Amino acid sequence: MVNLPPNLSVRNNHLFIGGCDTTELAGTYGTPLYVTDEDRIRDNYQGYVTALSLYYPRTRVLYAAKANGNLSILKILAQEGAGADVFSSGEVHLALLAGMQPGFLLFNGSSKTKEDHRLAVEKGIRVSLDSLDELSQLNQVAKEAGKVVEVSFRVNPALDVPTHPKIATGLATSKFGIPATEILDAYKAALSCEHVTPVGIHCHIGSQILDIEPFAQEARVLMQVVSELHRLGVKFAFVDLGGGLGVAYDHHGSAAPTFSDYAGAVIPVCTDTFSRLGIQPEIWIEPGRSMVCDSTILLTRVNSVKRAHKTFVNVDAGFNTLIRPAMYDSFHEVLVANRAGEAACGTFTVTGPICETGDILAHDRQLPDITAGDLVAVLDTGAYGYAMASQYNGRGRCAEALVRKGEADLMRRAETTQDLMHALVTPSWLK
Amino acid sequence: MVNLPPNLSVRNNHLFIGGCDTTELAGTYGTPLYVTDEDRIRDNYQGYVTALSLYYPRTRVLYAAKANGNLSILKILAQEGAGADVFSSGEVHLALLAGMQPGFLLFNGSSKTKEDHRLAVEKGIRVSLDSLDELSQLNQVAKEAGKVVEVSFRVNPALDVPTHPKIATGLATSKFGIPATEILDAYKAALSCEHVTPVGIHCHIGSQILDIEPFAQEARVLMQVVSELHRLGVKFAFVDLGGGLGVAYDHHGSAAPTFSDYAGAVIPVCTDTFSRLGIQPEIWIEPGRSMVCDSTILLTRVNSVKRAHKTFVNVDAGFNTLIRPAMYDSFHEVLVANRAGEAACGTFTVTGPICETGDILAHDRQLPDITAGDLVAVLDTGAYGYAMASQYNGRGRCAEALVRKGEADLMRRAETTQDLMHALVTPSWLK
Repeated sequence: MVNLPPNLSVRNNHLFIGGCDTTELAGTYGTPLYVTDEDRIRDNYQGYVTALSLYYPRTRVLYAAKANGNLSILKILAQEGAGADVFSSGEVHLALLAGMQPGFLLFNGSSKTKEDHRLAVEKGIRVSLDSLDELSQLNQVAKEAGKVVEVSFRVNPALDVPTHPKIATGLATSKFGIPATEILDAYKAALSCEHVTPVGIHCHIGSQILDIEPFAQEARVLMQVVSELHRLGVKFAFVDLGGGLGVAYDHHGSAAPTFSDYAGAVIPVCTDTFSRLGIQPEIWIEPGRSMVCDSTILLTRVNSVKRAHKTFVNVDAGFNTLIRPAMYDSFHEVLVANRAGEAACGTFTVTGPICETGDILAHDRQLPDITAGDLVAVLDTGAYGYAMASQYNGRGRCAEALVRKGEADLMRRAETTQDLMHALVTPSWLK
Repeated sequence: MVNLPPNLSVRNNHLFIGGCDTTELAGTYGTPLYVTDEDRIRDNYQGYVTALSLYYPRTRVLYAAKANGNLSILKILAQEGAGADVFSSGEVHLALLAGMQPGFLLFNGSSKTKEDHRLAVEKGIRVSLDSLDELSQLNQVAKEAGKVVEVSFRVNPALDVPTHPKIATGLATSKFGIPATEILDAYKAALSCEHVTPVGIHCHIGSQILDIEPFAQEARVLMQVVSELHRLGVKFAFVDLGGGLGVAYDHHGSAAPTFSDYAGAVIPVCTDTFSRLGIQPEIWIEPGRSMVCDSTILLTRVNSVKRAHKTFVNVDAGFNTLIRPAMYDSFHEVLVANRAGEAACGTFTVTGPICETGDILAHDRQLPDITAGDLVAVLDTGAYGYAMASQYNGRGRCAEALVRKGEADLMRRAETTQDLMHALVTPSWLK
């Protein structure tokens, strides 16, 4: 049997999340349906805060909004006191609307537009710069607005970490960041800009990393750079270690590192350097996946079962709804939500409705006997689930429900055929 | 230099499409921007019709709507007389709204819902069945409606074809279709259903296939099955060969097979069998990519240029806009649209604004010198471009423009931050 996380349970053969019966949720709101347990997100946030505070009082958690940008989730985290790592003007607007403070946001990204810079300057949001080209552009925008904007540079730590190459962001060959060898010159250039003040430094080594050592390595690289920049005269308000702590998608396998493991490995590396330099900048981290992933399951209805060379369970969610298995060969546990107490009786491959061979949610899984009408739950879909959903194959995106201690409500309705057409315009000659 | 297709040209150092200056289009409508040349789609459609008609009068082209479901494109194809291969209720609604006739649609897919079946029965649309489970479900739905629905089964031809494994749909191991060894039993079951009549057969071997031989092989497998089913008493109204003809994304390399190559390889295989059996069913094909791919370019603005271990050209379109390079390692030609007549002067890697290392549109390309503000054109983006776009990283999807003989107009507006929130609902306790 799958080891269930604390927010999931089985009662009367049904899977429950946050005290709610998944079969009832699917009946009420339809399928496919993402269901998020609010308390799990609050617990994850507090887990980070508690673990970090144990080592250093001046820490801040900036949620990586890209993992799951539903406004309700941003509101929940804003209530807890979180800031956000934002990657677009859209994410800035959502984070502010959710009640996050501009000073708790960092505008990241390697390819920002002039409008992005204008928004950051207008709202007083710090910017993480990724190139000298961007530095001069931002300086110009701030000059036009008669303001000074606080910035960091993103350092490329040139670390090879054990994760999927598409999400290993700290490789020497990555598109992100400025090589450590050039970072001093970048800060010199920033110090000479009238409308830009460097007050921080930023780094990120990737996503879904299950070893702690790479994070400690990253901290050591970053502290070396901090020491050099301190000598150069940079006054640090913050040091941003980025995110990347992985989660355990395989519930039969070994557990992921804990928030305490993470804090214990990286914070002392920083505080040692801070003491030596006599500085006390805030330490920021940018968790995304580890904050929301295990809060959410995806419920999907079985349309039909086909016995061919394999037994295919055809469900109503495909890679239009959850792209991770098709795009990254990601593994997610699946359960039969309305037979959650039954023993496995065969091997099943769970496939979606999309017109591509790669549209498979789960390969060769041991599951109870399944028939059309059954309900499949895909676990750990809170991060990069709805956030990456599309309307591919003419399918509106599904609904998202929020649950809390047995209560449930929608936080996003399902899209209809009308929503496939909402932005259509008819060219004059086709009218 | 890149060999340009006939609908693209260079004048005064600017790239033109369908008689329109791309730099003006980008200025008028903003970027990123998909631009589609209407005449190219009409030419591709007529190219198929002409090539097929040469061999057999009773042919029909069903456009694979999933490749590009913009209503204007469906309208253009409806005007030409095309039908459509539809894969969801959403695609059915769009195809009918565009003016396509229900009798010219085939409702495909391995995972249809009861609502999909009801819609097909109500509108009189033929259904391609993918399992015995689906057969009995559809028969029940038709019975409840007091109707008889015409169907085909999708045969799995068990052919290994040279394309990306994620889009090779005719493999023995694919989720699609019924093994040829079991297809007779499937038709027998259908013949015994009161509310279902088998009138066709359907097959599909994959997408982006650049050899002609696999299509001929497929036709041979299918004709063997047709012969057996004819003996069984099936009266064929149509034989659907599916789609899959590839296009030449690399404009330096060899050309893709032509519509004539395709028709010449497959139609005689079918007509030989038809003559022998004394039958005259329609031959249907389902082209998607080869119908729309080369009609469209993606225009994207350069935000910044970073010289690190490589020179990165950071543009405003990422895999939120065009996922093919990140998901399938696909190659697309890129040009600098406002320097289209200039010689290459260096090696550039074109990267998007998305927070993933894999967000690269084009690796190591020889291009003219590029600076912020320049305009990059990504060629051959009419198929699986906008159709697979998402709002990942808090970015609204971009606009789509249609051009025709020097005229231009929007066929989809760009999404705004409001569009990121259009389906949001606030749970009662977060109000």
